[in-house]
Formats: sequence, C-alpha cells, structure tokens
Amino acid sequence: MKNIASNWFKSLQDKICLDLESLENQSILNEDQFRATSFTFTDWSRDGGGGGTMGVLRGGRVFEKAGVNFSAVHGQFPAEFASKIPGADKDPTFWASGISIVIHPRSPLVPIIHMNTRMIVTTKTWFGGGIDLTPVYPTDEDTEFFHSQVKNTCDQFDTSYYDKFKKSCDEYFYIHHRNEPRGVGGIFYDNLNSGNLEQDFEFSKAVGNLFINVYRPLVKKYFNIPWETAQTQDQLHKRAKYTEFNLIYDKGTEFGLKTGGNIEAIFVSLPPMASWQ
Amino acid sequence: MKNIASNWFKSLQDKICLDLESLENQSILNEDQFRATSFTFTDWSRDGGGGGTMGVLRGGRVFEKAGVNFSAVHGQFPAEFASKIPGADKDPTFWASGISIVIHPRSPLVPIIHMNTRMIVTTKTWFGGGIDLTPVYPTDEDTEFFHSQVKNTCDQFDTSYYDKFKKSCDEYFYIHHRNEPRGVGGIFYDNLNSGNLEQDFEFSKAVGNLFINVYRPLVKKYFNIPWETAQTQDQLHKRAKYTEFNLIYDKGTEFGLKTGGNIEAIFVSLPPMASWQ
Repeated sequence: MKNIASNWFKSLQDKICLDLESLENQSILNEDQFRATSFTFTDWSRDGGGGGTMGVLRGGRVFEKAGVNFSAVHGQFPAEFASKIPGADKDPTFWASGISIVIHPRSPLVPIIHMNTRMIVTTKTWFGGGIDLTPVYPTDEDTEFFHSQVKNTCDQFDTSYYDKFKKSCDEYFYIHHRNEPRGVGGIFYDNLNSGNLEQDFEFSKAVGNLFINVYRPLVKKYFNIPWETAQTQDQLHKRAKYTEFNLIYDKGTEFGLKTGGNIEAIFVSLPPMASWQ
Repeated sequence: MKNIASNWFKSLQDKICLDLESLENQSILNEDQFRATSFTFTDWSRDGGGGGTMGVLRGGRVFEKAGVNFSAVHGQFPAEFASKIPGADKDPTFWASGISIVIHPRSPLVPIIHMNTRMIVTTKTWFGGGIDLTPVYPTDEDTEFFHSQVKNTCDQFDTSYYDKFKKSCDEYFYIHHRNEPRGVGGIFYDNLNSGNLEQDFEFSKAVGNLFINVYRPLVKKYFNIPWETAQTQDQLHKRAKYTEFNLIYDKGTEFGLKTGGNIEAIFVSLPPMASWQ
C-alpha cells in the first residue's frame, strides 16, 4: 500500500501541474506583461532517507507562485518528535509520503488555496490532509460553493466527516495573535484510520482530486478581470498574514525546519511578495 | 531611577526620529519619485498597565520603513513567563521600559539596522539591549567600521563587554534553519546588573547614543548611489530571511504576541516588502 499511495501522490502532482499550466494558457489578461508559464521540477533527497520532487511555477500570468510538492521520506524521527507522534514513542521508524500545494495567484481577486494529503506509517498507519481557501476578498457565493464541494466529497465517505474536519480546520488555521482565521476554512484531518485503510486512502484520493475541480471554477471566474493597485496592496497584506501563520504556527513548517528538511521545498508555500506596511 | 530611565528612552526616541528625518532631507536621490518623509507617532496603552509610543516613517526617500518604538509597561507576567524571568518566579510583578528600532532603508546598498535598550524591574533590576547590522552586501570596510565603533563604546565601560556581548549577538541572531547569521553581528546583552546600576544605565545610554553616530555615516556613504533592479531582488530576499528570524526565533516578538502586545508596534520591525521567490 505504501508504494501504491506514493505512486498515486506522485501522479497527482503531475496531473495537477498540467491542469494549472492549462489555466495559465487560458487566461487572456496581462498578455503583454506576463507569459503563460510552466512548472519547474527539482528532485531533492533527504539525508535520513527518501526525498521528493518540488514543483514550482514562478512568475506566471495567472499564478505568481504555485508550489506543488511531492515527497516520500523514511527513517527515524528525532527523539523530541517521536514521543509526540502516534505509534513512534517506542520505535521512531517512520515512512511518510504525500503531496502539498500552495498557490499564490497574481490577481488579488483569485483566492490563495492550500491542499495537502499524506500517508504516514510508524507502528501505526494513518492518513491526513485537508484543503482550505484564503481569498483576499471573501464572498458568500464563493465560500458556499467551496464548502459545498468539500462537503459533497466528505459525505461520499462518512456524513460525520465534514463537520468534524471543518471544525479542525477552523481551529488549526487560526492566526491567534490577530484573533482572526487565516482564510474561509475548509477541512483538515489527521490520524485518520477508520479501520478500513483502503477506504481512508480513497477518501484522501477524493480530497486530492477535488483540488482542481473546486479551484478551477474560482480561478476562471476572476482570472480575466483587471484589478486596481489598491487591491494589490490588500493582497500583499493578506499574504503577510499568511506568512505569519506559516512561520509561527504551522506544524508542518516547524517539523520540516527542525528536522533538516529541504528549505526550498518547505518555503515554497511562502508568497512571492508580501508587505508589512 | 525607573522614571529617569523611562524619560531618557522617550527622549532618545524623539532625538533619533529627528536625526533620521534629517537624513531623509539630505538625500538627493529619487527626488522625483519619493518625498522626504516624517515620522508618525501613535500612542497605545496596554491592557495590563502602561503603554507606549510607536514611531513609524513609511515610504520615505531614504527609509522605506523605519520603526522607532518607545514603551513603558508594568503589571504581572503571565504564569508561563514568570518562571523564566529572573526574580519573577515568586512575584510576577514587573516594570519594563525601553526603546526598540528597526530600519528598512529603500536602497539595497544601505544596511538594515536594529537597536534596542531596555530596563527591567522584577524583584531584581537589570538592563538589556544591543545593536546589530544586516547589510544586503556586507563589505569588510563597513563591518570593521561598525564593530570598531561598538567596541569603542563597550571599552569605555568594561573591556570584557565587547567580546562577551558580540558572542551573545552571534548566537542569538542566527537563522538556524538556514545555517547562517542574520547579519554581520554587533552586540547583544541581557540581565546586566554589574552591582553598579547607575553605570549599567550609562552603558545602555551609550549604546542608545551610538545608534545614530554609527548608522549616519553608513547611510550617507550609500544613500545617493543609484542601484539596479537585481539588487532590489537581493534586498527583498534578505528581508525575507530577516522576517523568518523575527517570526520564528525572536524572543521579543514571541513574548509580545503571546502576552497580547500591540501587534502594530511588534510588527513595525517587519519589512515593508519581502519576497520568497
């Protein structure tokens, strides 16, 4: 199953990058200023075992910075982490594979989006992941569309998932020092092992497949609409708060930095430009 | 002594802001693009007691963002911090006053600088502070000039200070996940109570007075030299790493955020624009 999951995450990376490149080519805005741009892929290997492929599209017409990372790593958790991770307290051996995406669009009208799904194996096995949206200008229509699509996906597996995972998302993606949520939410789940791992994998695949289907319409709704300079300022400020969350609170970022992860791959989530005016 | 120190920090804020405004007016570069600009002052009060004055100059000709903060706060340390702070483990009552400066110049040729001095009173009393330089393009000449000025100031008080406080600075302002120092160093000291508090206050005053005398020549050396777009990119990348340090490692930032400090005043140290390309 580890191989099957890992291969699937890798193939999802390829598919999503093609889908995003196709959106680059569909936009007709800023044709004179910006060229439709492709992903660049960089393989990296981890000292302790395994590695990954970082996919980044920089300076595109629709996407100012789009990071689509795949990794499959294994080894021993450092002692300080092993005690915090299910099934690793006595044996720190682990295997983990997943895909992680953060998209910073050029237009302040197109929302930032984040999606991640992963499989982790210690003496226990589980899935984790989620998808959440961070518009600079939230609208009820977009928020309802996004959440209804996420709920539909959840409901196909377990009708308790959406409420439970939405709550986890709201709690996790919260900028405590500003008393505000990072975005308009979505779902976040971890330690998912329902007793039917095949089914849990299918759920994670469904979340992965949802990504482009829920993001494409939001991108296409806005990507040909011109914007004002003042809106770019709002976007730079929103991105600054996104950066604050990722550097101060995000456990994945902290884990990566403290375990000698690949800095470029970890920080692919950070915005191409942000402003604390 | 609390009043004397606090009044002195406040008067230093006023003096330094005038000095920086004078540098704004002396530059002849970018006259068409940017106006010489003045500081804006905002008073804030702290829920637990005391408050401060945030001084910010934004969008100037020489300084893209210059933050010069004064504060004088008092109250009770939250339990989780009291145990970590000298003399506060049994009685969490504290008083603290100081000045904190971070300057983000417009030109990538002019170094970023940070200076801070403070007096803290619990059941113990001490001084802390420091000054350190972060050039985008370090040169031996500038680094040697900066350190020699800092050493001269230290040597007037105790010939062991410079080596000891330089080492603390190198250890503290280190970006661990990148295995690189934040800048070219300076001095950093804390819990300074030599047994002669008057003398320790004089030392902190000397560090405070050093700021403009060591920074003015560095600003004037570069502030009329045009720069290239590629150098602005280097600057934005250096600022991104500065942001990483402040959000991930800086204890002052963490303390402020966790104790409900004034967000605007805390983040006045963050750059007006930064890039993770």
